[in-house]
Amino acid sequence: MTKIKAAIVGYGNIGKYVLEALQEAPDFEVAGIVRRSTANNPGEVASYKVVTDIHELGKIDVAILCTPTREVEKHAEALLAEGVNTVDSFDIHTGIAGLRSRLDAIAKEHGSVAIISAGWDPGSDSIVRALMQAAAPKGVTYTNFGPGMSMGHTVCVKSKDGVKDALSMTIPLGTGIHRRMVYVELEDGYKLEDVARAVKEDPYFASDETHVIQVNSVDEVKDMGHGVNMVRKGVSGKTQNQRFEFNMSINNPALTAQILVGVARASMLQRPGAYTMIEIPVIDLLYGEREELIKHLV
Amino acid sequence: MTKIKAAIVGYGNIGKYVLEALQEAPDFEVAGIVRRSTANNPGEVASYKVVTDIHELGKIDVAILCTPTREVEKHAEALLAEGVNTVDSFDIHTGIAGLRSRLDAIAKEHGSVAIISAGWDPGSDSIVRALMQAAAPKGVTYTNFGPGMSMGHTVCVKSKDGVKDALSMTIPLGTGIHRRMVYVELEDGYKLEDVARAVKEDPYFASDETHVIQVNSVDEVKDMGHGVNMVRKGVSGKTQNQRFEFNMSINNPALTAQILVGVARASMLQRPGAYTMIEIPVIDLLYGEREELIKHLV
Repeated sequence: MTKIKAAIVGYGNIGKYVLEALQEAPDFEVAGIVRRSTANNPGEVASYKVVTDIHELGKIDVAILCTPTREVEKHAEALLAEGVNTVDSFDIHTGIAGLRSRLDAIAKEHGSVAIISAGWDPGSDSIVRALMQAAAPKGVTYTNFGPGMSMGHTVCVKSKDGVKDALSMTIPLGTGIHRRMVYVELEDGYKLEDVARAVKEDPYFASDETHVIQVNSVDEVKDMGHGVNMVRKGVSGKTQNQRFEFNMSINNPALTAQILVGVARASMLQRPGAYTMIEIPVIDLLYGEREELIKHLV
Repeated sequence: MTKIKAAIVGYGNIGKYVLEALQEAPDFEVAGIVRRSTANNPGEVASYKVVTDIHELGKIDVAILCTPTREVEKHAEALLAEGVNTVDSFDIHTGIAGLRSRLDAIAKEHGSVAIISAGWDPGSDSIVRALMQAAAPKGVTYTNFGPGMSMGHTVCVKSKDGVKDALSMTIPLGTGIHRRMVYVELEDGYKLEDVARAVKEDPYFASDETHVIQVNSVDEVKDMGHGVNMVRKGVSGKTQNQRFEFNMSINNPALTAQILVGVARASMLQRPGAYTMIEIPVIDLLYGEREELIKHLV
């Protein structure tokens, strides 16, 4: 079996878990890891090529982009133009359609494939959301996140004066309504009530019920578990009250990484272009002989 | 917009709900209904062509096969060979891979598309099962059915001596283990204990906890609601204890019919061949402009 040569671009939280997922995937070969600097490499990458320029890795089939979301497009554009497939977990929902259409043109021109926004939401949740809508075309789907850490909200709290460290937890209250539980470690001389006011007035928090709590150590309350509860009540044909629910309780970066490896595999099977996860067959994410998978899963 | 011309082949329980789902689908036109006999047509089909030979309907794009499962292949073979797409909800799990491969050859030869085993299980559940495996490749998925009526088990009970009417309900006990609650209406002169023994000894029931209960009217305890609870606990990369759950509480034939209409739509977008639902992109099941669907769902 010719293995799929994958490069990991960016080696933060997601990148580390992508390496683990690739090590467990029988059909992949880790071509190497691309970092901004090759100083201070952690021990687990010792047996891999770590480079600052992806071209030092030779020919690769697919680049798994584990950079911050806002850097995804720049890397994808350059690699797709060289005929290298890319996958990413770009997660700004309002930017997905635009990113897809820009990368689609580049990928088609250069015979490469991009699969974008492939984490859990956007990503695997999107597939469940699309399936629920197919099963009951009329109705409302509620996506309830958590309990789990929100990266965006946490970064926002950290930007406030007097905040040394922070953690914003998302607590699902149902029907897509969320409570924000914010844990803060304060700099000396700052008052909780002032910080709490600044947080609650920020547009990130203004429309949600928000509680700000002072702790001695944010690190002691942090965990990377997350979850989702998706619910749809809708109409199949003319039949009301069809009910669907999807629940997940997961280690967040581990799941994102596993999905990225799945779409990296799937990228080898698509025609040139850029795709979101709802546009590719689910079977393409899986390792294994196609007929066997069908016997086992259908 | 050119509408998709669909024929309903077979007009039992599923066929009736397919007609309703087609009436609600903006992109479909009901070309007509194919029945064994056109006598005793129910009122709701009065405004449609009802025929015994599908060729009387003129050119159609897709035939939605609502016949008993064992008649699916015969109809699909004939129609695919004439260049007409077919969709079905063939539900004998062990026969799916074989059916797919036989129809695939015919469809490819004649430029048509078959999407097979498209109900809820096999069907939409298969997509969730494949997605759960993609999210956590190592682990076990349990599919728990019910509470709801099992057609196969009900037919089995009805075949026993002394049974006038019957209903076999499937009750989920978790980890794929099921209890069978069997409701029977007896012919005069038969004893419950004899019927109960015959049921429990049948291979259909022998390995499950089974209770046989006599009722005055099976009709009074029958409803067409059904459900599923799918659970997977598994490993993403090297991270254990990732948990996924899918629940559904639905009107059984209404959901099957809605899924059939979705795959009928999807059949227009696939390359010639035969597919199961995990082999087609979920977005293809949906009505609407592609970019709008992506904005809304991803």
